[in-house]
Amino acid sequence: MSAEMKDVIMIGAGPSALAAAVYTTREDLSTVLYEKGVIGGMAAITDKVDNYPGFPEGIEGMTLAGQLEKQAERFGAVIDFGEVSEIRDEGDEKVVVVDGVEKRARAVLIATGSDYNKLGIPGEAEYYGRGVHYCATCDGAFYREKRLVVVGGGNSAVQEAIFLTRFTSHIDLLVRSTVKASEVLQHELQKYVDDGKITVHLGTTTDEIVTTDNKVTLVRGTKDGEKVEFKTDGIFIFVGLNPNTGFLAGSQIELDEQRLIKTDNRLETSMPGVFASGDVRSGATMQIASAVGEGATAALSIRGYLDDLKRK
Amino acid sequence: MSAEMKDVIMIGAGPSALAAAVYTTREDLSTVLYEKGVIGGMAAITDKVDNYPGFPEGIEGMTLAGQLEKQAERFGAVIDFGEVSEIRDEGDEKVVVVDGVEKRARAVLIATGSDYNKLGIPGEAEYYGRGVHYCATCDGAFYREKRLVVVGGGNSAVQEAIFLTRFTSHIDLLVRSTVKASEVLQHELQKYVDDGKITVHLGTTTDEIVTTDNKVTLVRGTKDGEKVEFKTDGIFIFVGLNPNTGFLAGSQIELDEQRLIKTDNRLETSMPGVFASGDVRSGATMQIASAVGEGATAALSIRGYLDDLKRK
Repeated sequence: MSAEMKDVIMIGAGPSALAAAVYTTREDLSTVLYEKGVIGGMAAITDKVDNYPGFPEGIEGMTLAGQLEKQAERFGAVIDFGEVSEIRDEGDEKVVVVDGVEKRARAVLIATGSDYNKLGIPGEAEYYGRGVHYCATCDGAFYREKRLVVVGGGNSAVQEAIFLTRFTSHIDLLVRSTVKASEVLQHELQKYVDDGKITVHLGTTTDEIVTTDNKVTLVRGTKDGEKVEFKTDGIFIFVGLNPNTGFLAGSQIELDEQRLIKTDNRLETSMPGVFASGDVRSGATMQIASAVGEGATAALSIRGYLDDLKRK
Repeated sequence: MSAEMKDVIMIGAGPSALAAAVYTTREDLSTVLYEKGVIGGMAAITDKVDNYPGFPEGIEGMTLAGQLEKQAERFGAVIDFGEVSEIRDEGDEKVVVVDGVEKRARAVLIATGSDYNKLGIPGEAEYYGRGVHYCATCDGAFYREKRLVVVGGGNSAVQEAIFLTRFTSHIDLLVRSTVKASEVLQHELQKYVDDGKITVHLGTTTDEIVTTDNKVTLVRGTKDGEKVEFKTDGIFIFVGLNPNTGFLAGSQIELDEQRLIKTDNRLETSMPGVFASGDVRSGATMQIASAVGEGATAALSIRGYLDDLKRK
C-alpha cells in the first residue's frame, strides 16, 4: 500500500460530492476531491436556490455552495484542483489520472455533473440565473404572471414550455428550424397555442439577450433574414444536456444513450468500487436536493464496499 | 371530479414528504400531507443533526424540521393530522382512508418512515439523541475516544459495533442470548475482541440507562441472575427496524422481506400513481439527506405522472 493511497477519490466538487465527503470524512475515510472548475458546481453560479430543503426563504447559490464546502472540510475533506482524464480498475485499487499524474484509491465517486448546452449569445452568460435559465423546475416559479421566451424545439423544450404556462401570462417559443418534439407533445402544444398561452415562432434564431436596469427585458432574433424582437421578463433555454463524462470514453464504465452513467440501486457503476451520484447519473433530476441525497447514499454504499474489501 | 380531489396526497410529514411538498406545491399541484405523529418525523426528535448538507456546524433536529415545514407551507402545502388505514387504486384516482374518511387524489406519496425498535427501558426515551442512539452513521462521530455500550446480537449490531470502534476507546456489546450475526461478521468481531476494543457480554439483558448531570453515565443489566453495570458515555441500540407499512397489509403495494416498500428507479411502487420515498422505501439509508433527496426525486416523478394523466 502506497503512502498516497486514499480511501476515496471523488471526481468533482459540486453539491453531490461535497455531501458525500461530509459522510465519508466524518467516518474517518481519507477523501480527496478533484475539481476542474468551480467548487460547488452549478449551485455556486445559481443566483437564488428556492427549493433546497432546509432554507424556508431560499438561499443564494454561492452561499449554499460555500456552506457545503465548509461542512465537508470541517471533517477533513481535501479539495484539489485538477482535471481527470482516466479511471483504471486494478481490482482492489483504482487509478485516477489527474492532470497526467496517477492517483490511487480503494473507491471512487464520480460526481462531475452535467452542463446545460448554451446558445453562446450576448447576455447569456452574464445573466445566468438572473433572467437566463435552463431549468423550469428550479426557476419557473419566479415567473408568475410574467412573460417568457423559451428557446428550443425538442421534447424537453416543448414539455417545459407547457409546464411554464402554469406560471406565465404568455410564452414566445423560438424554434430554430421546426418542432421536433413527439406527436403527443406537439398535439398538446397546439392546445396552448389555440388558447393564446404560447406563440410558436418557427425558423427563428435567438441572437441576443438585452437587459435594462440589470433585468432581462428583450430577446432579439432573426426570422427569414429579418430582425425580430420579443419583450420578455426572462428566457429559458432548452437545447440539450452535456454530461461531463467525456473522460470515460474508452473506459469500462457503462453510459446510457444520453452519455449519463448507469448505476445500480446502490449507485455503483459497472466498474466495481466506482460509484456515481448527482447530475452525471442516468436518471438524474438536475436538482441540488437529489444530488445531495444521492451523495449521502453513495457515501454509505462506499463505506459498505470498503468494509467488504477489508473482510476479504 | 369531486371538489375535494387533490393532485397529491402525501402520507407522513417527515423530511421526505416535506421536501416533496416544497416541489409539488411550488409547481401549483394541490398537496395535502397526513401525519399521525410529529411533523418533521424522526428529525424533529433528534438533538443535533451534524450531517445534513448545508449546515456546516450542524443544526438542531427540531430547528431543521421547523424549517422544512415552513418551506413547504410557504408554497401552499397543507398538513393535517390523521392516521391512514388504506390506499385503494381506482385507476386515475386513488382513495386514501384517513381516520375512516375517504380522501381522493390523482397521485399518492408514501413517506411514513421507519421506527427503530426500542428496548422500552428507563432512560431510553428521555435521552433519545442525547446519549441514547439508534444510528451509528448519524451519531457515532460524537463519541471519539469515548466508551460506549452497544446492544444487540444480530448482523446490524455487530456490524455497527465494529464500525463504532473507529471512534471509541472501548465498546461493551450486550447480547441478550447469543450472537446471531453471520459467520463472516463473527469472525471479524473476534479480531476486535482480541485487540481489546470490544468486550462481548452474552446472556446479558439491558435494564436501565442511568444519567448523571443530564448525561448518560451508566448502563445497568442482568447476567445469570446477577446485576451488572457498565460505565459508558452513551448507548447505541440495534434491535431491529420497524417500517411504518402496517396500513398496507392486504394492499397491492409490494413490500420486501423487511416490510419496506419496493420502488422502481422513478420511486413508483407496484401501484401505478403511488410513489414512496425516504426511510420507508426498500434500500433506505435512514439518513435525512437521502430522504430529502428522494422526496425531491419523487415529486418530479409525480409531476411527470400527472402530466401523462392529462395527456391520456
